[in-house]
Amino acid sequence: MIDERHKSALIEILGEKGVVTDQAGMAAYEIGARYDRGRAAAVLRPGTTAEVSACVAYCVREHIALVPQSGNTGLVSGSTPDASGSQVVVSLDRMTRLFDLDIDDRSLRVDAGTRLSDINGRLEQSGLFFPIDLGADPRIGGMLATNTGGSRFLRYGDVRMNTLGVKVVLADEPGTVVDLMSGLRKNNTGVDWKQLFVGTSGAFGIVTECVLNLERLPRQVSTAYLVPRAGAAVMPLLRMMEQRLGSYLSAFEGMSGNAVAAALAHVPSLRNPFQNGDIPAYVILTEISRSWAPREGEQPLDAVLETVLAEIWEDDGAPLANAFVGPAHEMWALRHALSEGVKHAGRLLAFDLSFRRADVLAFCEWMKAELPHKCAGVDSFDFGHIGDGGVHFNLVVRNADQVDDAFEKWLRDWVYSVAVDRFGGSFSAEHGVGRKNQAYYDRYTPQESKNLAAGLKRLTSPGSLGSVCFG
Amino acid sequence: MIDERHKSALIEILGEKGVVTDQAGMAAYEIGARYDRGRAAAVLRPGTTAEVSACVAYCVREHIALVPQSGNTGLVSGSTPDASGSQVVVSLDRMTRLFDLDIDDRSLRVDAGTRLSDINGRLEQSGLFFPIDLGADPRIGGMLATNTGGSRFLRYGDVRMNTLGVKVVLADEPGTVVDLMSGLRKNNTGVDWKQLFVGTSGAFGIVTECVLNLERLPRQVSTAYLVPRAGAAVMPLLRMMEQRLGSYLSAFEGMSGNAVAAALAHVPSLRNPFQNGDIPAYVILTEISRSWAPREGEQPLDAVLETVLAEIWEDDGAPLANAFVGPAHEMWALRHALSEGVKHAGRLLAFDLSFRRADVLAFCEWMKAELPHKCAGVDSFDFGHIGDGGVHFNLVVRNADQVDDAFEKWLRDWVYSVAVDRFGGSFSAEHGVGRKNQAYYDRYTPQESKNLAAGLKRLTSPGSLGSVCFG
Repeated sequence: MIDERHKSALIEILGEKGVVTDQAGMAAYEIGARYDRGRAAAVLRPGTTAEVSACVAYCVREHIALVPQSGNTGLVSGSTPDASGSQVVVSLDRMTRLFDLDIDDRSLRVDAGTRLSDINGRLEQSGLFFPIDLGADPRIGGMLATNTGGSRFLRYGDVRMNTLGVKVVLADEPGTVVDLMSGLRKNNTGVDWKQLFVGTSGAFGIVTECVLNLERLPRQVSTAYLVPRAGAAVMPLLRMMEQRLGSYLSAFEGMSGNAVAAALAHVPSLRNPFQNGDIPAYVILTEISRSWAPREGEQPLDAVLETVLAEIWEDDGAPLANAFVGPAHEMWALRHALSEGVKHAGRLLAFDLSFRRADVLAFCEWMKAELPHKCAGVDSFDFGHIGDGGVHFNLVVRNADQVDDAFEKWLRDWVYSVAVDRFGGSFSAEHGVGRKNQAYYDRYTPQESKNLAAGLKRLTSPGSLGSVCFG
Repeated sequence: MIDERHKSALIEILGEKGVVTDQAGMAAYEIGARYDRGRAAAVLRPGTTAEVSACVAYCVREHIALVPQSGNTGLVSGSTPDASGSQVVVSLDRMTRLFDLDIDDRSLRVDAGTRLSDINGRLEQSGLFFPIDLGADPRIGGMLATNTGGSRFLRYGDVRMNTLGVKVVLADEPGTVVDLMSGLRKNNTGVDWKQLFVGTSGAFGIVTECVLNLERLPRQVSTAYLVPRAGAAVMPLLRMMEQRLGSYLSAFEGMSGNAVAAALAHVPSLRNPFQNGDIPAYVILTEISRSWAPREGEQPLDAVLETVLAEIWEDDGAPLANAFVGPAHEMWALRHALSEGVKHAGRLLAFDLSFRRADVLAFCEWMKAELPHKCAGVDSFDFGHIGDGGVHFNLVVRNADQVDDAFEKWLRDWVYSVAVDRFGGSFSAEHGVGRKNQAYYDRYTPQESKNLAAGLKRLTSPGSLGSVCFG
């Protein structure tokens, strides 16, 4: 708990409702979405950039450690305090006022505490949306801090590619506000500073406002399940789909049979879509979409997808074992149930990895072959975003008693070393860096990059900010 | 000229053909594409990253100032030495060996000295291309250093969005090589360092290799000229086109009547496409495209465009005065002739500006109204990329004798102040920063950003590198 002097000073800055120090009030800010539980010295809830600046400046001068928190939906312990009880959480949850839509510019100025669902809910009638598609419902500041990707990266890119501007408070003695909110799409006037605050877990500054690129909402959507003949058929399939469907293609998601079975078992309302209920070893969910309403003379989108799948069937050496178009909501419902399903399949050890696109399946198959020898009783329930090389590599341990800290560390070390050292992949595709994977940042980041990060930390936010140590 | 000791040492590192010191050999490296002429102390032509590192390290230790040069097609004096004769040019023109295409990943590893035309020429048979469309033919390292945008930004984004990795040599005493070549699309493991070397004119390091995102080549293209009823009709037109054509839309370029007339006058082989030859005050060139071959049952792209234009015509208060679909090569030929045409219309003072999209026309019209009062005899021949807010704002002075240094400075100061202060625009949309616009970087960059840049300069490349002073 912070002492009374600090508490009074912070109440002076933020008002009574801006400073939470009672246990009940702090609880929700201390618990991570899935994994951890820490203890906060206090929770600060500023309502404006000026308030963020003032409270950050105070804490930096008083050597109080700060952890910025946005929607707190992350999975790497990036936004919760540690167990020491000495860190103060700076929550963005009252930063939700600004909402300035520029229709002509297809852009939105918004406070960093605004939830993704609020953004897209309020935008719906304009026919526009912020095109990052996630299972969770984070606040936008945290989405910037982790540079979230999601299921439609293939078409729209990640948060970084859709961020036109930010306003940031640095953790230095004055609580410097850096205003990068011009929001211009083409602007090459030196360093593009906003890039430093995207994907860096709030360690270099707290994003308080941003300008977002918006895209036109899909008005026609068609989906299919594709069953490849083998893992090696997935890349040819993706190539054929890209070749024939170009910018229509908006998702190309991979699902292991294990993950599909776990979802069907966990959510009884889901229909098993496969012939005789036989779940294949691997399935692709692909989606094509157009942002305009159906037009006379234009082939319906389902027919386009059917035609293309027929063409692929007719190809010599067609990589397809099976394929069928089906209702988008039903097909996506199964995809969205994977995460919960897998959690209920046993003791879960989850990895958020990425590779060059061709290596996703190569890695998963290598692992599947090795797992029985390396650690019997552990199975892979992977699924992910083949179109951009991301994979949620989930290991489920049948006998939960097998898992203690030493086993978990040993298994994690092994998986990461195969992913990074052998396959040239990343230990964090789209969840970002937090306390949970700090050790892997330390291990896998080249020394030159670490030196630059430490220097940048001194340069921007020398105060103690964030749950990650880049310095 | 560098002294004999340095010359010998550098020949030791790079070999005889890697070090040019004779006047005739250096001439091509001393002259800018359009504007300036400097004097080099020597030209270094390393062939590998290791050679770049070794010669940079030598020069940093010996306090020799370096200017990296790529294709030298820039327009802001970013890649040529100044008049002092003390700067050494480091040319990338021998860095052209690496060309590693990953079809499955849709990515290309390439040396930084490779020309854009070589990249796309060699890629053609794969059906892929690097989707940055420019008038010039730069080498890729320079494209990264300026973050070029071009005419199809609206569809594909800029160089930044299409760069998956870089290898960089820092101007520090060891000539540190920073290898960021994993090329992963989703990779959030801390600071995305490659962002610092994009759009920063080579001041923080010399890019020697990169990984590029590739897109599928367009296989069907349809273009039209749209004549808006007035400047205020351009944004509604763009909105309607985006609404009805979504991801088909690949260009939405604006051309002032003055610029069109100048191009037609300069290139006699161009056909005047307008009724009775009457050139409108403003014309939009719009392009839609698809990356797949025509398919049975699918409406041809020209018919799609005709249909949409007919819909827009039928709308109440249609913003169109005229519109017609025409041959893409002919329509683009006129667009591509604008730059040369304008240069021959009189004494040219060119500005590379950007705005929020709606402000492009607002700015141009404001200027057109003010110019006769502010400086008679000066007319605007603007054209640009309405779809992303960029505009090549060209002022042509009828009486060239009117232009001396003082007049040019006065006029530039005025235009930039209107663009930046009044309209919230940028003084460099896509040409980047060089000696030519250093004064405007100094004037318009907020002090916090300047401080960060100076700190970053010390952190990365403390040696004298580049034609711009960020420090």
